[in-house]
Amino acid sequence: MTLHDVLIAGQWRPAASSGTFRAENPATREPLDDEYPVSTWDDCNAALAAAEAFAHVLRAVPQESFAAFLEKYADRIEARKDEIVRMANMETALPASPRLADNELPRTTSQLRQAAVAAREGSWALPTIDTKNNIRSQLAAIGPVAVFGPNNFPLAFNSVAGGDFAAAIAAGCPVIAKANSSHPGTTRLLAEEAHAALRGSGLPAATVQLLYRTSHADGERLVADPRIGATAYTGSRAAGLALKAAADKAGKTIYLELSSINPVVILPGALDERLDDIAAQFTTSCLMGTGQFCTNPGLVILLAGPQTENFIAALVERFQAAPAGTLLSGGVAKSLSHGITTLKAAGAELLVGGTSGGGKGHSHANTLLRTTGQQFLVNAEALQTEAFGNSSLLVVCNGDHELGLVLDRLEGNLTGSIYSHSQRADDKLYAAVAARLRQKVGRLLNDKMPTGVAVSPAMNHGGPYPATGHPGFTAVGIPASLRRFGMLQCYDGVRPHRLPPLLADKNPTGKAWRLVDGAWTTGDISGG
Amino acid sequence: MTLHDVLIAGQWRPAASSGTFRAENPATREPLDDEYPVSTWDDCNAALAAAEAFAHVLRAVPQESFAAFLEKYADRIEARKDEIVRMANMETALPASPRLADNELPRTTSQLRQAAVAAREGSWALPTIDTKNNIRSQLAAIGPVAVFGPNNFPLAFNSVAGGDFAAAIAAGCPVIAKANSSHPGTTRLLAEEAHAALRGSGLPAATVQLLYRTSHADGERLVADPRIGATAYTGSRAAGLALKAAADKAGKTIYLELSSINPVVILPGALDERLDDIAAQFTTSCLMGTGQFCTNPGLVILLAGPQTENFIAALVERFQAAPAGTLLSGGVAKSLSHGITTLKAAGAELLVGGTSGGGKGHSHANTLLRTTGQQFLVNAEALQTEAFGNSSLLVVCNGDHELGLVLDRLEGNLTGSIYSHSQRADDKLYAAVAARLRQKVGRLLNDKMPTGVAVSPAMNHGGPYPATGHPGFTAVGIPASLRRFGMLQCYDGVRPHRLPPLLADKNPTGKAWRLVDGAWTTGDISGG
Repeated sequence: MTLHDVLIAGQWRPAASSGTFRAENPATREPLDDEYPVSTWDDCNAALAAAEAFAHVLRAVPQESFAAFLEKYADRIEARKDEIVRMANMETALPASPRLADNELPRTTSQLRQAAVAAREGSWALPTIDTKNNIRSQLAAIGPVAVFGPNNFPLAFNSVAGGDFAAAIAAGCPVIAKANSSHPGTTRLLAEEAHAALRGSGLPAATVQLLYRTSHADGERLVADPRIGATAYTGSRAAGLALKAAADKAGKTIYLELSSINPVVILPGALDERLDDIAAQFTTSCLMGTGQFCTNPGLVILLAGPQTENFIAALVERFQAAPAGTLLSGGVAKSLSHGITTLKAAGAELLVGGTSGGGKGHSHANTLLRTTGQQFLVNAEALQTEAFGNSSLLVVCNGDHELGLVLDRLEGNLTGSIYSHSQRADDKLYAAVAARLRQKVGRLLNDKMPTGVAVSPAMNHGGPYPATGHPGFTAVGIPASLRRFGMLQCYDGVRPHRLPPLLADKNPTGKAWRLVDGAWTTGDISGG
Repeated sequence: MTLHDVLIAGQWRPAASSGTFRAENPATREPLDDEYPVSTWDDCNAALAAAEAFAHVLRAVPQESFAAFLEKYADRIEARKDEIVRMANMETALPASPRLADNELPRTTSQLRQAAVAAREGSWALPTIDTKNNIRSQLAAIGPVAVFGPNNFPLAFNSVAGGDFAAAIAAGCPVIAKANSSHPGTTRLLAEEAHAALRGSGLPAATVQLLYRTSHADGERLVADPRIGATAYTGSRAAGLALKAAADKAGKTIYLELSSINPVVILPGALDERLDDIAAQFTTSCLMGTGQFCTNPGLVILLAGPQTENFIAALVERFQAAPAGTLLSGGVAKSLSHGITTLKAAGAELLVGGTSGGGKGHSHANTLLRTTGQQFLVNAEALQTEAFGNSSLLVVCNGDHELGLVLDRLEGNLTGSIYSHSQRADDKLYAAVAARLRQKVGRLLNDKMPTGVAVSPAMNHGGPYPATGHPGFTAVGIPASLRRFGMLQCYDGVRPHRLPPLLADKNPTGKAWRLVDGAWTTGDISGG
């Protein structure tokens, strides 16, 4: 067994540790060989000190260097692809192919490269120039960013390679990554490539640092530290809210992606028209990746009627027939069982599944529960418990009015989907449903399940609390996701040779979109 | 004496009150005749219920209606200008002319009209369209906004007429205004005009509601209520942080403008060149409005030397010669005395002033204090106590290194100014100072005092905590200030006839800037 080093101040070095841990192979339930340290505050403090010490240097580095680093890093990940995929598969049981090798890894490198383009171009910073008053402003690096990655995307949301990492680096911020404890090896391999890519990049070696685990108390201390600019956290609601409380108290910016059950409303015309197709779409969306997506459809809202009964029967059949996948960890399996128990205690009836095991390693039977709109209204909070995994709750409402009341009781979610008749048969009800759902979700979908999150400039992977901590920001989509890591910096009457490149009269790349006297342009400022 | 009504659900009606209060004329220290209610939770609850009940209606109102309302309201304020100015002068002792009639009132109506233009145009919402994936997003009304206005701008930052109000309405949000208790009459007159302007506007009458005062506990309950979209607060740090704690705990968005001492660094070359001019500028900036500006220069940082001694002597002379103005209230006078006492206890030496009174009504002598860089480093927190009013602290540093250390200890501020030689004599030191100051302040100025806050699209009236609660947003400047009141709403695969106007293929006004496939344009989407 090897006890691995942490990455602090540009060096792989032994941790100041209070203990060690090993990851587990969820498919075999066997612990893996490698041993990783639980860092004490000394490591956190050293990482913060290094990030702060290089902050001045980092702010003087040309944006091109950030872009070049991100691209070199993407290349290096691809060069080591087989090893990274093998490790991620061993630590998460997510299929090596197509999931890890063909979807998640290419997505990860694509995000890094899109972030590179955004860093080079500069438009993300919303540079704004008032030539008459000589007032100019832009978003600029907020400072060192702590990234806490989730368990369910070992690559694309990894704290040292995923979307938050890419966005923070592209915005000019050093990153202190806290690995997810379920895949430390994957995170180590990625961090090795990041570290190697930093060499010769012109960026300080402390731009990327990695700790594997800390105590909860040290995590809370880290996000509240005066040297931190912001934190990005993706994971469970309880741990996220503890970090939020610590950051809020210290006046520190924190972005959270917590939990979401992603309601799907299926209107009668859609069932009349294409019941089987929707049943197939839902089953695929709910069970792929063993249901372990932030945007998993965990709540389906229907109107009572014979077609709804047919639809539910079709779902039960499909859920029974589909093999139970392996879950990410024993913790996820336990939490899923617990969630289902909570839903049952709150009045949901079990249609299929509901038992532990049935698949390889940590697993749980594909599960469907059912309740009425009336019961949902009695116990709305408990019936919105997230049962993260291959499970979903169907809510059958007695008429449009009850459907509206159910929608009004929904918490904030990342997504909300509405299926309706392909012509205008459902349009009146659609309007009423969409008006209610719109304010509750970050992304509203038509006739689609929510599990595909395109990395598009127009994407919103965000939403009202408790899905996230602020409904104005997205964690996916470039360049918008970079803006989370910017502070607004205004220059009032500052002399031309002292302005940052993006705010100079001459557009530094000819590609940055700038709002000059009320109009967006990539041109230079004339008469400057 | 008249006990005034509150404005709830479109009606002026008697408050559910736990008591009453009267404003005071600070120039005479006499209470004014009018009596205002302290609302209980029943009033808060009724206002929240009305805002929520009309939320659906409000979201369906065309943007043009918000614009027309804001313009009609601005016209009505101008029509009642004399009475509003007279009342504001009586309640705040700010000069009727030029301050209230010629500066603040025109600024207020200009903000309302600029917000109207922004509402009509739509560019504030950063509409973003990915035609290939048919994913479209924009910022849209976050929900009912509670606005708590400060004491020092009875018009331009008034909770029912100022910048936060204008931004929230233009973003499509109903406002629940909480009057500042020092100028309830001014707020009442403005709210009467807002109420009248709502008639025939197409907006629900509950779009603007007004409470005069609540208990602290009810204020905290209000900002944390599930029906609230966001809160905007401008005022003292203690009260602001109490509201922030309540909002944070409930996961509610809150924007704060708390306190700022606005450091001014004067480099040697500037003093060599134009000592008298800078002394005059500083004196004007520090004493105008009796120093009661958020951007008042409360901390001046200098390098030790004979010219600095000459500069300080010139300031002392000017401060002695200038008349002491009237302060906004007995509370402000007391807090100013308290701040100065704290600064003295922390090691600052009194150069001039330091005593209560000396002007008309509530007043305090124009005050200058002095300390060394060394002493500042010993007691940095206490020596950054805000002494809100006609007072400032000079910090004389022994050399460039000590100056750097002092800058590193600064808290977050709204502004930071650097005066330097008009040629490049100070440029090396400027670079070192600016690199340190830049991350600490929202707005960096050259050769200007911070007290002029232009309503420019490029303005940042914001900054790092504790100046505000999030360094990415500005409270002044249109359209950026509107973005605080937007949630990001994404439409994924939504059918064309169901899209909001700003995201349709056809640009609804031909004026909205939209980011279409990576390029900003006011055009339509071709092939749509």
